[in-house]
Amino acid sequence: MTRWKASAPPRVIDFWFDLGSNYSYLSALRMGHLAQQAGVAVRWQPFLLGPIFASFGWSTSPFVLQPQKGAYVWEDMRRQCAKYGFPWQRPSVFPRNAVLATRVALHGAREPWIDDFVKAMMRANFARDEDIASEAKVVDALHELALPATAILAACQAEANRPKLRAQTERAMALGIFGAPTFFVGRDMFWGNDRLDDAIELARG
Amino acid sequence: MTRWKASAPPRVIDFWFDLGSNYSYLSALRMGHLAQQAGVAVRWQPFLLGPIFASFGWSTSPFVLQPQKGAYVWEDMRRQCAKYGFPWQRPSVFPRNAVLATRVALHGAREPWIDDFVKAMMRANFARDEDIASEAKVVDALHELALPATAILAACQAEANRPKLRAQTERAMALGIFGAPTFFVGRDMFWGNDRLDDAIELARG
Repeated sequence: MTRWKASAPPRVIDFWFDLGSNYSYLSALRMGHLAQQAGVAVRWQPFLLGPIFASFGWSTSPFVLQPQKGAYVWEDMRRQCAKYGFPWQRPSVFPRNAVLATRVALHGAREPWIDDFVKAMMRANFARDEDIASEAKVVDALHELALPATAILAACQAEANRPKLRAQTERAMALGIFGAPTFFVGRDMFWGNDRLDDAIELARG
Repeated sequence: MTRWKASAPPRVIDFWFDLGSNYSYLSALRMGHLAQQAGVAVRWQPFLLGPIFASFGWSTSPFVLQPQKGAYVWEDMRRQCAKYGFPWQRPSVFPRNAVLATRVALHGAREPWIDDFVKAMMRANFARDEDIASEAKVVDALHELALPATAILAACQAEANRPKLRAQTERAMALGIFGAPTFFVGRDMFWGNDRLDDAIELARG
């Protein structure tokens, strides 16, 4: 006798992240492995937190606007990275605005190289304190993955493709996303790297 | 050969909480058991988040000021309570201002009944949606613990004792506390129920 289920588990997790978000860094480095172990597919959903913060009337990250929280967050990141065994260097510029890199991530969100590209940009920002806003860094990352950087950048910057990032960020807003990382399993929302395991568990079914 | 240590582990955790804070509820229900298992002593540090939020220019909790975050938080609480096996009812008034109950908790912070008193007030607020701002609820809780309610309330409300809660909340501010629950192990600060295990681990040494 098999157990009846109302519906099969979705086995899909939507991973909403911002390349400038330090807690997104932790989840980006964990996601591929955790999802694979659980037999869950990842939908990579790069977006920009900046316009969402602006919609709250904030000019930048709350980690900058609230000095007490900011001071805590960098210490928390140091400890969290030590716990996961991830390299960590506090970025000298925070939050880094990585519009081009985010356009590339959105362009490649369903490509087999997306996981490695996101990790490369995240490590540049949070492990090596590199300026991921620069086109050169994006090109470097694509070259390291043996990808046709020129063609990819041309596609991302084509007039027809430029509205895609704005539309994606508006989708994030419509979903009620207020920070990053945020995970969805169906309609169930999970905020923060601390909830990644719960989200995977739900997706696993 | 024994391993040299600069100093013995502190084996003490400072638990800063606000009786109106929903994530403090989770930690209040977990703390006694976790600390006992780890052989760690708890210093109960009740305080008021309100004046700290006011110092940031906020009129109330960010869960009220940010509707998106607020909506998420109640769903997160439902799931977290289910996970821990804790009763949960979303309070119809949030955040509840529990000045008298907090005065009692501060007064009894080193008494053997502190853990039970805090749990009683937290359960009233977050499991039964009761008005913990009322003196009657505080008296009920003290009576259930077979404590001399009249004498305790008289002591808490005595002129000489009234500045203690303000001083405690100023201490919280001076420590850089920006939310609750917050844990300290020596000078190491941990924010949020999600960091309670890490804090206990450090205190255990």
